[in-house]
Amino acid sequence: MKDQIVIGLDYGSDSARALIVNANTGSVLASSVKYYPRWTEGKYCDPVINQYRQHPQDYIDVLEATVKDALAQCPAGTAENVVGIAFDTTGSTPAFTDETGTPLAMLPEFAENPNAMFVLWKDHTAIKEAAEVNDLCAKWEIDYTAYEGGIYSSEWFWAKALHVLRQDKAVREQAYSIIEYCEWLPALITGVTKSSDVVRSRCACGHKAMWHEKWGGLPSEKFLTTLDPLLAGYRDRLFEKTETADKPVGTLSKEWADRLGLSTKVVVAGGAFDCHMGAVGAAVSPHSFVRVIGTSTCDIMVASYEEIGDNLIKGICGQVDGSVIPGMVGLEAGQSGFGDIYAWFKHVLEFPLKNILSKTSLIDEATKAKLIAETTDQIIPALSVEAEKIPVSESTIIATDWMNGRRTPDANQMLKGSIAGLTLGSSAPRIFRALVEATAFGSKAIVDRFRNEGVRIDTVIGIGGIALKSPFVMQTLSDVLNMPIKVCKTDQACALGAAMFAATAAGVYKKVEDAQDAMNSGFAKEYTPNKENAKVYQEIYDKYVVLGQSTGLL
Amino acid sequence: MKDQIVIGLDYGSDSARALIVNANTGSVLASSVKYYPRWTEGKYCDPVINQYRQHPQDYIDVLEATVKDALAQCPAGTAENVVGIAFDTTGSTPAFTDETGTPLAMLPEFAENPNAMFVLWKDHTAIKEAAEVNDLCAKWEIDYTAYEGGIYSSEWFWAKALHVLRQDKAVREQAYSIIEYCEWLPALITGVTKSSDVVRSRCACGHKAMWHEKWGGLPSEKFLTTLDPLLAGYRDRLFEKTETADKPVGTLSKEWADRLGLSTKVVVAGGAFDCHMGAVGAAVSPHSFVRVIGTSTCDIMVASYEEIGDNLIKGICGQVDGSVIPGMVGLEAGQSGFGDIYAWFKHVLEFPLKNILSKTSLIDEATKAKLIAETTDQIIPALSVEAEKIPVSESTIIATDWMNGRRTPDANQMLKGSIAGLTLGSSAPRIFRALVEATAFGSKAIVDRFRNEGVRIDTVIGIGGIALKSPFVMQTLSDVLNMPIKVCKTDQACALGAAMFAATAAGVYKKVEDAQDAMNSGFAKEYTPNKENAKVYQEIYDKYVVLGQSTGLL
Repeated sequence: MKDQIVIGLDYGSDSARALIVNANTGSVLASSVKYYPRWTEGKYCDPVINQYRQHPQDYIDVLEATVKDALAQCPAGTAENVVGIAFDTTGSTPAFTDETGTPLAMLPEFAENPNAMFVLWKDHTAIKEAAEVNDLCAKWEIDYTAYEGGIYSSEWFWAKALHVLRQDKAVREQAYSIIEYCEWLPALITGVTKSSDVVRSRCACGHKAMWHEKWGGLPSEKFLTTLDPLLAGYRDRLFEKTETADKPVGTLSKEWADRLGLSTKVVVAGGAFDCHMGAVGAAVSPHSFVRVIGTSTCDIMVASYEEIGDNLIKGICGQVDGSVIPGMVGLEAGQSGFGDIYAWFKHVLEFPLKNILSKTSLIDEATKAKLIAETTDQIIPALSVEAEKIPVSESTIIATDWMNGRRTPDANQMLKGSIAGLTLGSSAPRIFRALVEATAFGSKAIVDRFRNEGVRIDTVIGIGGIALKSPFVMQTLSDVLNMPIKVCKTDQACALGAAMFAATAAGVYKKVEDAQDAMNSGFAKEYTPNKENAKVYQEIYDKYVVLGQSTGLL
Repeated sequence: MKDQIVIGLDYGSDSARALIVNANTGSVLASSVKYYPRWTEGKYCDPVINQYRQHPQDYIDVLEATVKDALAQCPAGTAENVVGIAFDTTGSTPAFTDETGTPLAMLPEFAENPNAMFVLWKDHTAIKEAAEVNDLCAKWEIDYTAYEGGIYSSEWFWAKALHVLRQDKAVREQAYSIIEYCEWLPALITGVTKSSDVVRSRCACGHKAMWHEKWGGLPSEKFLTTLDPLLAGYRDRLFEKTETADKPVGTLSKEWADRLGLSTKVVVAGGAFDCHMGAVGAAVSPHSFVRVIGTSTCDIMVASYEEIGDNLIKGICGQVDGSVIPGMVGLEAGQSGFGDIYAWFKHVLEFPLKNILSKTSLIDEATKAKLIAETTDQIIPALSVEAEKIPVSESTIIATDWMNGRRTPDANQMLKGSIAGLTLGSSAPRIFRALVEATAFGSKAIVDRFRNEGVRIDTVIGIGGIALKSPFVMQTLSDVLNMPIKVCKTDQACALGAAMFAATAAGVYKKVEDAQDAMNSGFAKEYTPNKENAKVYQEIYDKYVVLGQSTGLL
């Protein structure tokens, strides 16, 4: 019997990646990345008001391009052996659709209307609407945010939908329903032609749309129309049921089989968010804390019912049955700023290069540009080298990690960062070290919250750019958390996780855990905490808490 | 009648300056600066333990050099018209002497012994001894620190003397008495040959040696021997009386008249500390707050007895009858860090230049050195230009100014600096603006203390490098203090003040105030507070106070 092949498709903020994986062994045959063409041009966005929209045609364009490009790199005959496809995407990234489930921007009259497009996760135009959701939930007999951490965000489904409805009469009149990015792509390639046939993502709906079985699905019609009469009727036209991503949503339509060069027998799995599938790709299991560590972090855990029962974990981003691994509760948390905080300090240090040296007449323009680029590229590596030499006993500068607010524990976007313990001897590497420790302390605050709420954590698994490339940061994190940290070999955990879902949906495995066992990448590295540093850090952490309490809102 | 000429000699930390001034008009005829040769070589110092010693021969070498050099620039016959000389020096900078009043390092057997030299103001080797003075004063029936702000410093007379006595057996056995830098130079050139003939400086003794008329001069023998039996006998060999600097201590000795090319009729005034004479040179008068603004600040006021009576001003550096202007109480305060805080931030920002760009092979070494020097020189000016453009309403970053501890109000060298309100948008100029505001808030804390203790302040007079060269800093200071600030035309206020004392001692004027009226430089610039900014700053100042309270000792 030939090896079975699956395709994991990871749709990120700027680009999509196709990973061609041997479903039996987990070995990666090929990979291809394509950037969204309209997005790359900066279309439909307005950073001043934090409006970020993506055209559905961008997603279609890169779908064909990545899959074909990746398959072209594989041995002849690979395409014939493809048995499954799965998508992970950013989220909450919803769009309004017509009755066929087609995003309005695909209709000619809405082709250039940003309100008819997908509202990207980081779009913050709906701050007012999110506040209204929170106010109403606080008064309502049911707190619909209970399983979403208790605070509804402007980045989420209902806030965005309501904001667009209020903004745009044309969309309002034409819209029939709403779809999440990760639901649309499977629906598209399986040939769905009725909105009611769209399979809804447990992950997206449970974490962002206040869907929960306990209250019969979405919030009640009365709640939604009290929020705004403009929402009348949407509940009935949306959905009652949601599905986990291991379930097939169908097989490739004739059109898409042809466009991708695959057979119509290829099974398409349900969609889910990138970090959730990423956690699966990173071998998440109970008691391991999976962190996607990049500019910010997305932290994912799974817990059995036996472990958490009906407990509501306070102050995290949500807990949803089956959002990560079917049959377990998926828990999401995260830090608003991680690598972004180092990048901020780098930006501060660039001032002499970009504002002064850039104007020199001592060297020619080409050399100048090269010199500035070469130097700025080295700032974080050079800081890391110097910071690593400083003993923990000299970590007398203390910082908080709230330069981009705080996502968890206890979301508060009003919080700001601070640095204390500064002397005339506080050099750039010493400050950098304090910032690295601050991001680790922010991580500890999340871990402590999970533990205090009864969730056991034994180990950390890191994926993402910083996990793979910054040993100093990872060792500090291990010391502060006083826990081992494993770093996955794969730098494509999300796409690999999608491939695992594709394999499960296609029947190669009975359950996601079996796919994980067979297809995981293994670990590239394990960090072990230095017990003496861990002891010192426990004391410094207490100061971090005091610093945050006294200065976060100053 | 010919114009009368005086020489003001300003002995700073690194160099001495001679200013030749027309005593009748105040016009400056010439000036000359010479650096201390042994000090420039780094001799007798150990920065690691904050040991800073200066050889008395350094002072002698530059005395002859500066005076001759300055006189050589004047019209022929100027030397004949010189009627007075006065010195200001750093302090407390004491040295042990023999019975002739000669610093021990002038004797061949002590020529290379740092403990036989002047212990420079910033020498911090006597931290332990200062703590012992404070402990004993707290228990004693008299608090001898009462007129020195209530806290004795390691930078001061008795702490340093005791430290050296404990350290050095040879000095201990040979020492007869102790002399302050500003007392020795007048004694030297007037040919004093007995320690008991040295005229003691009211300014130095009152501010640093716990001398006060109220308790009959220096602390009692019992207090001193309780502190350490090594101090036994010093009190009797030191002094009971002190003199203000307007009084002549004598005339030039034959030797020094010859060496300087002057007549033996030239009157030599009493010595005092640089900032105190600087305040006189800057036209200090009641209700004006004179600030020498450089790396740190030294703040001087004078108040009449009618105004302050027997009030003890809490938490300042001291209040001494006649230490500034005879007949008035001289009050001293200051910030431990001012320009040093900007220099610290500059140093942080230099990291990419000095640790990365410095290693590039893209350009040759000579160009590299030039480029780095050119760029670093521009950091503070470029930050100022950008920071000035930011409206006060956007001053949302808040910092304290304690990166070098706090001198006043309420000395506490354990305090450290902090910065709060940081976001990912906090650019280098925004942080710099916050640091400038922090130094201004530190100034406001001192002004508020004086006012709360009953001392009226109507205006500020600025001298020193930052006052003359940093309009952005000075305007911010004016806005924060909500007071006008005048900046003296002279950039040599200390030497000019010394010239005023020389003129008064020589009888050109009856009192120092008359010399001030006739010889002052006038003002180069006046800053007027922006009333709207002042209002906003009052609110931000409240946050500065909270930030300091919660993070200063973290």
